[in-house]
Amino acid sequence: MMIKYPNGNIFAAPKSSNSSPQVITHSKRGMTLEETINAANTFYLSRGIAVIHKKPTPINIVNVAYPKRSAAKINEAYFAQASTTDYNGIYRGFYIDFDAKETQNKSAIPLANFHEHQVKHLDAIIKQNGIGFVIIKFAVYNESFVLPASDLITFWQQSQSGGRKSIPYQYIKEHGFTISSGLIPELPYLKAVDELIAQQIN
Amino acid sequence: MMIKYPNGNIFAAPKSSNSSPQVITHSKRGMTLEETINAANTFYLSRGIAVIHKKPTPINIVNVAYPKRSAAKINEAYFAQASTTDYNGIYRGFYIDFDAKETQNKSAIPLANFHEHQVKHLDAIIKQNGIGFVIIKFAVYNESFVLPASDLITFWQQSQSGGRKSIPYQYIKEHGFTISSGLIPELPYLKAVDELIAQQIN
Repeated sequence: MMIKYPNGNIFAAPKSSNSSPQVITHSKRGMTLEETINAANTFYLSRGIAVIHKKPTPINIVNVAYPKRSAAKINEAYFAQASTTDYNGIYRGFYIDFDAKETQNKSAIPLANFHEHQVKHLDAIIKQNGIGFVIIKFAVYNESFVLPASDLITFWQQSQSGGRKSIPYQYIKEHGFTISSGLIPELPYLKAVDELIAQQIN
Repeated sequence: MMIKYPNGNIFAAPKSSNSSPQVITHSKRGMTLEETINAANTFYLSRGIAVIHKKPTPINIVNVAYPKRSAAKINEAYFAQASTTDYNGIYRGFYIDFDAKETQNKSAIPLANFHEHQVKHLDAIIKQNGIGFVIIKFAVYNESFVLPASDLITFWQQSQSGGRKSIPYQYIKEHGFTISSGLIPELPYLKAVDELIAQQIN
């Protein structure tokens, strides 16, 4: 059965934490951006490199049934809007916070992919000296980038006062950090984050 | 309608982020520990002091209906076990990670209040130089403490090899940091976290 989130992503039941590494089993048949990030996080966690998790999808529960001798069953609930980004955690002692977006567009990523509360959240993170960014994947080129949250915020603010409603691919290529594709993990995004950290602490 | 989580906590629908400050409206009629922490986090966020959020409750979605002209309705889902603690964020540039537990017990908090994956998660956080702890409230005394995760981990490991199955109140009073009650926020737990940070970086 296929379940879709409001954002169009297909819902996948969480894997058991005891299952065999997803990195190997999935790598040949094309993972979604979210799956590659989750696989990278599982790898980083297992090696003691970083502790970064995707937050659960926020849901408003309306009704729960308590069948005898079985688990509580939620029989009415609705997707709620997240007040933060999807991912956060700790790496090299730094607080890490980001969201990930994929576009089929060739020349730019529309700002409509981001929500105001996410941009505001990233702004608050930066003010606390956290490492905030977005991972942007241009599916057509199979290229992924770490773009500093400060760039997203600048484009967001300009768009609010009549500026363009997207971030150009060329801008991201020049101001973001390219995530070189790897084997295990397939998307070693923390290497690009290393460059972002080096830029921020200098 | 009252909805209970599997842990016995009563489910409360999330407040709109635009609602008036909860700190004032709720303080007189006794908030749960979770509510006082959420109120503190709202206060800290609004003042630019810290960005700390409670993670959504993880849920396994089994079936979703898509009624015409209305929001997607989840009509079968179950509570899932969290793989991390409930709260994390950033404060003074430090990565902060904790869970909160309340006990009616007078002399100790049973370790059964904590789950193995939470203890392991806090252990991983400490190894990354994060600030990990638990907020423990003894309801009978109306006293709350910040107990360093390292103490929880020590008791947990001892219990695994036949040691006692609880952390004594006296131990927590001596080795934890007392959260003095305040007005706004009612539970200014970051003051106690300041003491924990001072201890850890010295």
